[in-house]
Amino acid sequence: MGKVRVAAFTVSLDGFGAGPNQDPDNPIGLGGFEMMEWMFATDAFHRMHATDRGETGIDNGFAERSFENVGAWVIGRNMFGPIRGPWPDEEWRGWWGDEPPYHVPVFVLTHHPRPVLEMAGNTRFHFITDGLEAALEHARSAAGDKDVRIGGGVSTIRQGLSDRHIDELHLAARPTLLGRGEALFAGIDLPSLGYRVVETTPGELATHVIIRKT
Amino acid sequence: MGKVRVAAFTVSLDGFGAGPNQDPDNPIGLGGFEMMEWMFATDAFHRMHATDRGETGIDNGFAERSFENVGAWVIGRNMFGPIRGPWPDEEWRGWWGDEPPYHVPVFVLTHHPRPVLEMAGNTRFHFITDGLEAALEHARSAAGDKDVRIGGGVSTIRQGLSDRHIDELHLAARPTLLGRGEALFAGIDLPSLGYRVVETTPGELATHVIIRKT
Repeated sequence: MGKVRVAAFTVSLDGFGAGPNQDPDNPIGLGGFEMMEWMFATDAFHRMHATDRGETGIDNGFAERSFENVGAWVIGRNMFGPIRGPWPDEEWRGWWGDEPPYHVPVFVLTHHPRPVLEMAGNTRFHFITDGLEAALEHARSAAGDKDVRIGGGVSTIRQGLSDRHIDELHLAARPTLLGRGEALFAGIDLPSLGYRVVETTPGELATHVIIRKT
Repeated sequence: MGKVRVAAFTVSLDGFGAGPNQDPDNPIGLGGFEMMEWMFATDAFHRMHATDRGETGIDNGFAERSFENVGAWVIGRNMFGPIRGPWPDEEWRGWWGDEPPYHVPVFVLTHHPRPVLEMAGNTRFHFITDGLEAALEHARSAAGDKDVRIGGGVSTIRQGLSDRHIDELHLAARPTLLGRGEALFAGIDLPSLGYRVVETTPGELATHVIIRKT
């Protein structure tokens, strides 16, 4: 059976996984794009968005690895879009245009039901209304032998850590200061939950840290 | 005039500058020594404590730099010792033995007066009862053209940042998880206070980040 993992998730020096005030122009909140610069520079990211080629160094190696062997995704509502509350209509189809970079089933946590959404390139969004554990069950079953990747956002990852659902967490530690936003670790005692740092690799624009559940 | 700076101050991946439960065996709290491993490995640290020689790489360069051009120190009460409340007597003379590694005046923040304490090697501890700003004035005057180094702990540095007393902060970001302890950044919006990351250098056991006030 595959792992449940978080990969290529960026955290600022002051501990934020997303900036404040998410809106359609700021999917990762204010300052979020600056945090993600390490990813935007990679060849993996460039190829995914069918533009020119990008960097092929250490950061890119981790970006590539983050997409390998992923059989299904679980993401929080805010990672799917900026709309809160009930879906007004089915117009919002995610941040990623007609062909999202998933190419596998994606289980979206929401309190508000919505029919399955089929996108180009084999991405299918399923809207799950009964919580993270249920979403992970669906995702495991869809992923078969492959891994389930929890994409984010911060509150989904925090719940996945607190409930020990996450087997492996790859963080890209970025030397930037956000000042405000969504704190990734606040109030979560990872060593007590059985998590340990097992690998640290400095990259071009981020330091890559692998944390595993023991 | 010199700068007011923090140097070689270690922060864990989950944002702690010290572990919980400081006591005579754990000057930096539980888990604190693991955080400091990068410093213990350096030649600067070995020479300071008159033992054998240590590593002379990047981490050591930052450790050496942290002691250069320092004309006076300001430290919090807990960095001087584990005793809380009024001084029971004058027996406690700091964590560092008869010859502390300062060799300049050190201004210790405390609510409880105590006479000046002269140590071997030209370190003189002054106990300041009227707050950080007063301690910094004393220290600036003692330092002359040299820098004032704020040694810690976390609450002293937090106050120095919140009140914009600190000109430069060198953090050693260590890829360890503490889980509990004293959070360095919580509730402090450094960009809004005018602080920016100006330099990042991966070392052997820590990533060195320089933050400056603009």
